[in-house]
Amino acid sequence: MPRSAWDRRHLLGLEGLSADDILEVIELAESYQEVAAGLAPRLTELGQRTIANVFLEDSTRTRCSFSLAARRLGADTIDLTGAGSSVSKGETIIDTALNLQAMGVSAFVIRCAASGGPHMVADSVRDGIPVINAGDGKHEHPTQGLLDIMTMRQRLGDLKGRTVAIVGDVVSSRVARSNLHGLTTLGAKVIVIGPRTLVPKSFEKITSGPGTVEVVHELDDVLPRLDAIMMLRVQFERQGDGPPVISGDYRQLYGLNAARAARLPKHAIIMHPGPMNRGLEIDSDVADDPKRSVILQQVTNGVAVRMAVMTMLMARHQ
Amino acid sequence: MPRSAWDRRHLLGLEGLSADDILEVIELAESYQEVAAGLAPRLTELGQRTIANVFLEDSTRTRCSFSLAARRLGADTIDLTGAGSSVSKGETIIDTALNLQAMGVSAFVIRCAASGGPHMVADSVRDGIPVINAGDGKHEHPTQGLLDIMTMRQRLGDLKGRTVAIVGDVVSSRVARSNLHGLTTLGAKVIVIGPRTLVPKSFEKITSGPGTVEVVHELDDVLPRLDAIMMLRVQFERQGDGPPVISGDYRQLYGLNAARAARLPKHAIIMHPGPMNRGLEIDSDVADDPKRSVILQQVTNGVAVRMAVMTMLMARHQ
Amino acid sequence: MPRSAWDRRHLLGLEGLSADDILEVIELAESYQEVAAGLAPRLTELGQRTIANVFLEDSTRTRCSFSLAARRLGADTIDLTGAGSSVSKGETIIDTALNLQAMGVSAFVIRCAASGGPHMVADSVRDGIPVINAGDGKHEHPTQGLLDIMTMRQRLGDLKGRTVAIVGDVVSSRVARSNLHGLTTLGAKVIVIGPRTLVPKSFEKITSGPGTVEVVHELDDVLPRLDAIMMLRVQFERQGDGPPVISGDYRQLYGLNAARAARLPKHAIIMHPGPMNRGLEIDSDVADDPKRSVILQQVTNGVAVRMAVMTMLMARHQ
Repeated sequence: MPRSAWDRRHLLGLEGLSADDILEVIELAESYQEVAAGLAPRLTELGQRTIANVFLEDSTRTRCSFSLAARRLGADTIDLTGAGSSVSKGETIIDTALNLQAMGVSAFVIRCAASGGPHMVADSVRDGIPVINAGDGKHEHPTQGLLDIMTMRQRLGDLKGRTVAIVGDVVSSRVARSNLHGLTTLGAKVIVIGPRTLVPKSFEKITSGPGTVEVVHELDDVLPRLDAIMMLRVQFERQGDGPPVISGDYRQLYGLNAARAARLPKHAIIMHPGPMNRGLEIDSDVADDPKRSVILQQVTNGVAVRMAVMTMLMARHQ
Repeated sequence: MPRSAWDRRHLLGLEGLSADDILEVIELAESYQEVAAGLAPRLTELGQRTIANVFLEDSTRTRCSFSLAARRLGADTIDLTGAGSSVSKGETIIDTALNLQAMGVSAFVIRCAASGGPHMVADSVRDGIPVINAGDGKHEHPTQGLLDIMTMRQRLGDLKGRTVAIVGDVVSSRVARSNLHGLTTLGAKVIVIGPRTLVPKSFEKITSGPGTVEVVHELDDVLPRLDAIMMLRVQFERQGDGPPVISGDYRQLYGLNAARAARLPKHAIIMHPGPMNRGLEIDSDVADDPKRSVILQQVTNGVAVRMAVMTMLMARHQ
Repeated sequence: MPRSAWDRRHLLGLEGLSADDILEVIELAESYQEVAAGLAPRLTELGQRTIANVFLEDSTRTRCSFSLAARRLGADTIDLTGAGSSVSKGETIIDTALNLQAMGVSAFVIRCAASGGPHMVADSVRDGIPVINAGDGKHEHPTQGLLDIMTMRQRLGDLKGRTVAIVGDVVSSRVARSNLHGLTTLGAKVIVIGPRTLVPKSFEKITSGPGTVEVVHELDDVLPRLDAIMMLRVQFERQGDGPPVISGDYRQLYGLNAARAARLPKHAIIMHPGPMNRGLEIDSDVADDPKRSVILQQVTNGVAVRMAVMTMLMARHQ
């Protein structure tokens, strides 16, 4: 039997995972769907373990998803967020992790503003303590990529040869990067769409497998070719003092409204990693379309995928 | 058997509840008293369920009360507070709730600055997912009203014909509104007392039943007629940049001091929803009067009432 | 059998504990080491109890340690932190504690900026509700002192006649005060070292037993005499608008670097209560020295000591 990614210790990104690696974890996640949705009793796979959620960038929602995933496997969680934490007092993220490890924590879920933060922790902790990247800077957000792929496969089947658009501030998006690696590994064609400043030509090189990436700056022409369209969030919270994140005509040029949605093929699905800016990157009637929008199914799959990743890393290779 | 409020899905306010509805939940709360006070082992009624505490206005104490209530029924809780939440990133409260629902949450406890926020969530979630209003703007705080009524009944018996004063910033108080509805439904006479700016004449119309509401601007004259006096908190945290919440003579005119307490009937009880501004709306010797102050009994009853509401909404009608 | 400190209700400081008191709790902590490190199943000593972590000064790490200690004894925890708490709305810490007690909380862990805060709570709560001081102002941090002593004894054996240096901002340090009381009670000689402004001569009087305290302002000369050296954290977060906490040559005069560590006896151990300012009070190669640094062992012992204190106060004298 070939060595799978799940013989490795950590999940730091989708870059480097094989198609089999991805499909193996999604298959396990499918088996967790009822438990993940709160419709079946909890499991006990990770009983007695404590998982540390180290969220140095606040994101209550993703933290809730990881917490619920852990608890539905019988694990206990401990949350360490940015404000008031040792890191806010100048401690390095590595020292924080080593301290939590010394307190008997069994695994780390890490979100931080610095690309590569989870990798630094992974290099420092003891053998047998997995690190799961919950979003590092503009680098990767691998469980988001896995839940997106799981959702697409549920509606579209095998993704080989399928065409997926990712629209918006691609250059800043760790969601986009993880999807690019995962989708091309599975043989999909990804079209990344947005203004030139947000979607550089160099993104055509971010591929991991047989699939391809195409950079396009106009949304309307590609709509009829798509099997799935993923609208990225305009991240105003990353704005700072710099120039505006988006130009005034962003909604007009790239917002997914009813007229644009009507130009998609009938079977095409509409995705968003949340939280949504309704009326900006996506209009409400599109986001809430009961047939084509899979946005809430993405959320439920998020819990299932996180349960599967925790099981693969923690319960199988002890 | 007549349809009770507890056949409904949510608890959004005391307005609209019948006397039987109120007494039914208080009777159940009475049976939970020992468990609520941590003196008897936990129950398992809500085992395997996760209750989301969505507190967009911070209130650690009320959140603790709901959390402890949930856990003493065997449920698990997940807390989502204002800072760092998706709502702080511009997401609507409805989207936040739908996301948590998609993660398998079984019920919502919602506190928010916007009157009607919990109602919007209640209109959006799936059948079978109850919403409990933990305070919405200046509208209602129904579990506070129920715990106040429970406490009064423990000391005064049937509230029909009893006289209860509510003193302070009544116009801004959701605690006052919930008590007005609940107390008049049970046939009590409520006297709301405070300066003209904080206690408008129109409050005499906020009644739900056989009881009556009287607006009065002088405290001293009514004291000998009272069975219970409830001092409202001066909410400096709501001040903002506007004019002062209270005038400089507030304490002198409306503060409950020993001299005023001495003019109450011997059996009258002293209440406060907390947190108290000692030395402002209430003096310490009054607040700590071991015979007449029921302020800490209100707190214990709060856990019991919240357990009862959760059970009525979650365990009985599945 | 003589009355031990553990017949008392609270742990407010190491001042006043006898050598037997200290050794009794450390012996129990030793028996908890595997559970504390997450390597053995949880215990059930404190099942059904809820412990309130009231951290009015934020310290996620210490709060995690207390939480994990409680949970590994089967207790449930509820966290109340500064922001958004009732105390931030002007409520006294005593009222906050009495409210949590009314909600059925079984014990308090309290950290606050005011020296004596936990004592005020201890004087107010009901018999049988213990209060554990988790750091009060510049006064004491007794569980830190106990974990430090536990760690020293593991490496050095009996501390009678041993020499321990505490280096840095001693005058502001509750860690230093608790260690001074504990170590002198056990017969150790403590040398407190730092600039005259941070280490006043009067510290020579802070002793509790047969040991002695010596105040010294030069670090280099004492190094060859030490069995243990404890570097205090420079607490920039306490700076405020006053003059700088340390002078520009602090690192040069008092930082523990490799050259200084080389002058320590071979058996001497290196300690730090964390979080560390690497490159300031301690250099990385010293902090990470696998043979002499016991910094992470201190962290693991912290969970064990807190478990032992909770058991002594809560499970033994009911």
